[in-house]
Amino acid sequence: MKRIYMNQLPEHFNEEVRVDGYIDRIRDLQYVQFIVLRDKTGKVQVTIEKNEENKEMNDFVSTLTAESTVKVVGTLSENEKVKLNGYEIFPKNIEVTSKSDPDLVFNYKDEQSAMTDTRLDYRFLDLRNEKHALIFKIQSYMVKLFRDFLYEQSFMEIHTPKLIGAASESGSEVFEVKYFDRKAYLAQSPQFYKQMAMSSGFERVFEVGPAFRAENSNSNRHATEFTSIDLEFSYIDSFYDVMHMEQEMLIYMLKHMKETYGEEIKNVFHTEVIVPTKDFPVIKLSDLYKELEKRYGYQIPEEDVGDLNAETEKLAFKFAMEEYQSEFLFITDFSKAKRPFYHMRENDVPQGYDLIWRGVEITTGAQREHRYDVLKKQAEEKGLGDDVKFYLEFFKYGCPPHGGFGLGMDRLTMLLLELPHLREAMFLYRNPSRLTP
Amino acid sequence: MKRIYMNQLPEHFNEEVRVDGYIDRIRDLQYVQFIVLRDKTGKVQVTIEKNEENKEMNDFVSTLTAESTVKVVGTLSENEKVKLNGYEIFPKNIEVTSKSDPDLVFNYKDEQSAMTDTRLDYRFLDLRNEKHALIFKIQSYMVKLFRDFLYEQSFMEIHTPKLIGAASESGSEVFEVKYFDRKAYLAQSPQFYKQMAMSSGFERVFEVGPAFRAENSNSNRHATEFTSIDLEFSYIDSFYDVMHMEQEMLIYMLKHMKETYGEEIKNVFHTEVIVPTKDFPVIKLSDLYKELEKRYGYQIPEEDVGDLNAETEKLAFKFAMEEYQSEFLFITDFSKAKRPFYHMRENDVPQGYDLIWRGVEITTGAQREHRYDVLKKQAEEKGLGDDVKFYLEFFKYGCPPHGGFGLGMDRLTMLLLELPHLREAMFLYRNPSRLTP
Repeated sequence: MKRIYMNQLPEHFNEEVRVDGYIDRIRDLQYVQFIVLRDKTGKVQVTIEKNEENKEMNDFVSTLTAESTVKVVGTLSENEKVKLNGYEIFPKNIEVTSKSDPDLVFNYKDEQSAMTDTRLDYRFLDLRNEKHALIFKIQSYMVKLFRDFLYEQSFMEIHTPKLIGAASESGSEVFEVKYFDRKAYLAQSPQFYKQMAMSSGFERVFEVGPAFRAENSNSNRHATEFTSIDLEFSYIDSFYDVMHMEQEMLIYMLKHMKETYGEEIKNVFHTEVIVPTKDFPVIKLSDLYKELEKRYGYQIPEEDVGDLNAETEKLAFKFAMEEYQSEFLFITDFSKAKRPFYHMRENDVPQGYDLIWRGVEITTGAQREHRYDVLKKQAEEKGLGDDVKFYLEFFKYGCPPHGGFGLGMDRLTMLLLELPHLREAMFLYRNPSRLTP
Repeated sequence: MKRIYMNQLPEHFNEEVRVDGYIDRIRDLQYVQFIVLRDKTGKVQVTIEKNEENKEMNDFVSTLTAESTVKVVGTLSENEKVKLNGYEIFPKNIEVTSKSDPDLVFNYKDEQSAMTDTRLDYRFLDLRNEKHALIFKIQSYMVKLFRDFLYEQSFMEIHTPKLIGAASESGSEVFEVKYFDRKAYLAQSPQFYKQMAMSSGFERVFEVGPAFRAENSNSNRHATEFTSIDLEFSYIDSFYDVMHMEQEMLIYMLKHMKETYGEEIKNVFHTEVIVPTKDFPVIKLSDLYKELEKRYGYQIPEEDVGDLNAETEKLAFKFAMEEYQSEFLFITDFSKAKRPFYHMRENDVPQGYDLIWRGVEITTGAQREHRYDVLKKQAEEKGLGDDVKFYLEFFKYGCPPHGGFGLGMDRLTMLLLELPHLREAMFLYRNPSRLTP
């Protein structure tokens, strides 16, 4: 008999049905036994009256433990007295498909009941929490929406190597791998390779894959491994084309997300999905500094001048909400000292931007320098030599003007659902002290 | 002015158009200059007559080098004498957007003109070869089709860590990473984590991501890093459900692939996309051995008994074509000694299969052992202890019966297009001696 999902049950009243699921809870009363079963689509009550006829099943149900999985075949009946959905199943047969140890490590239904480390150590239990599971349904849908948008825009997907021969972009914060008789490194981003695809004439590419950062930090928005959505596209006229692409991609995602999960997000995470209705505002970094000083008396510390820091990001959000009623803010005209060598510059100003959403930087985007001689000079100025030689080659035999950006999928999920920490938005979190499970 | 793609030109005769692309070739004749421009959608001829009026442009065109990129604005005219498409552009303006060194490292248009290592060292040039670029358009589409199928089947996408704390499945052939003051390893597959998602009640998950194998092998179908498509799903009745899912997924992909790229694949790669019209045949390993001996006089070497080897895979294909007119063949009933501990067994027979396509094994799939006690025993039998302890925990508090399989995206591409080597199907190939570019 074919299994049906809990959310399909209302199509099958008075029929014999088969459902499979976890035992969410059991109540064994004087005259009746109730089992609540759950699958990923919902729950149902299974009702077994205590009587002579049911004796064998009654005894059997008494031995069941919560969190075991069972297969139930029985008749589905409407009954408005049943608080859960207004229907119940009278079982003909119950088969245990896996048995749970009755002593759960913690009560996953109450996220406050365990220390964070316990929750993460037993993440497989922690994710049985409906709210936690919902995060990953939403994340899966978010990535699907981004891809849908990109396919529509003629992008193709590539898969670039994570094992690389040289400690690319900066050399610091990169993991070292023992690679047979030599060393390899883990890619911090697909930056160089998505640009290689531009040189190959692929024109529009994206990748969704892991990125690795050996940062010894325990901030609430960093991880040593995360999932990065990267894209790059050719024949742009300026970095405004990149900003426009990112804006459209985010609006597309938020629009469909609101339609599909807006209500559930409001009910479960107590936050609104807000779909921007106009262009994201743009401000130069120096103008932002002035506004923050004028409005909030905030002055950026000397060492951060030319860049953002966590406090600036927070206040930039406040400013954008007040001034433009926008959750998003593009910031341009960073200092070249604070930007990588491969950003194109015009009059010494990097042709790129950061995008702030809800007080956190979610992207750095830019037009790339695609002219071999200029790029080589900019690399040398930053003290980069042999390690980027292979990369510089990409630009020697023609390469279209191009640009792109990257987005952290986990961080976006965290911000969309207003989660308190990046670890809540990751299936399995990795930081300097956590490598398991 | 907005750029249009080469394949959109026929909608714009006698209009002023802007095209962007690489200079594919230049011919500078006595009375006329021809530039052939290419973008990712096609090519167009740009024609400049040599005369007084055009003198400045004629001189300029004489300085252009092939493989530079240009932006051309001009009038599109039909002209049946033009061999390329029957139309040409008379330019008003040509702007060089990047300049190519005139001495290309090798002629990428002729794949025989360079040693394989040169081609791979300069992969960014090698991928300008139209045939090579087509491989990746097809690969991107293939992965999209798989995802489309899986979303339709209620699967969700997960992203599992590639940095792991223990050398999981076997311990051999795993890359070691320096992780702050200790060691981490690179995941050989998401096997344990996609099963964790089953324990969490996610029911149906897939992942497309890198997998790492420290195999010191130089075979034509292995790489140290490749892209793996993995899926796992719950509440199955037997491993036949897994086989059925895989069959339907492959047929879906091949059907749409044939519709979209069938002709191009035939013309460029000289091979047919064949869509199976009936269930893939299934044979027990011992029966296959008998058939291969009877038909081809082949006897499997002692050390491979209970498993497949390259020769068996090749002959199994021959057998499947002869006996069933099928390119696919499921093989079941492997020896438990040759299968991992987490495959469910019935009467000591692993409840899994290999799938052969065109003479190569493309999958191992199975129902997993989800009963804690049995699984623990099977792990111990294989001498696995502490390293899989975290994994065994997943099954202690209930876990639905489940199964799944993995497919190498690169290997599938290789087989679909009958490429001679896996490296041709990888954007950037990694093997023991190759870590660059």
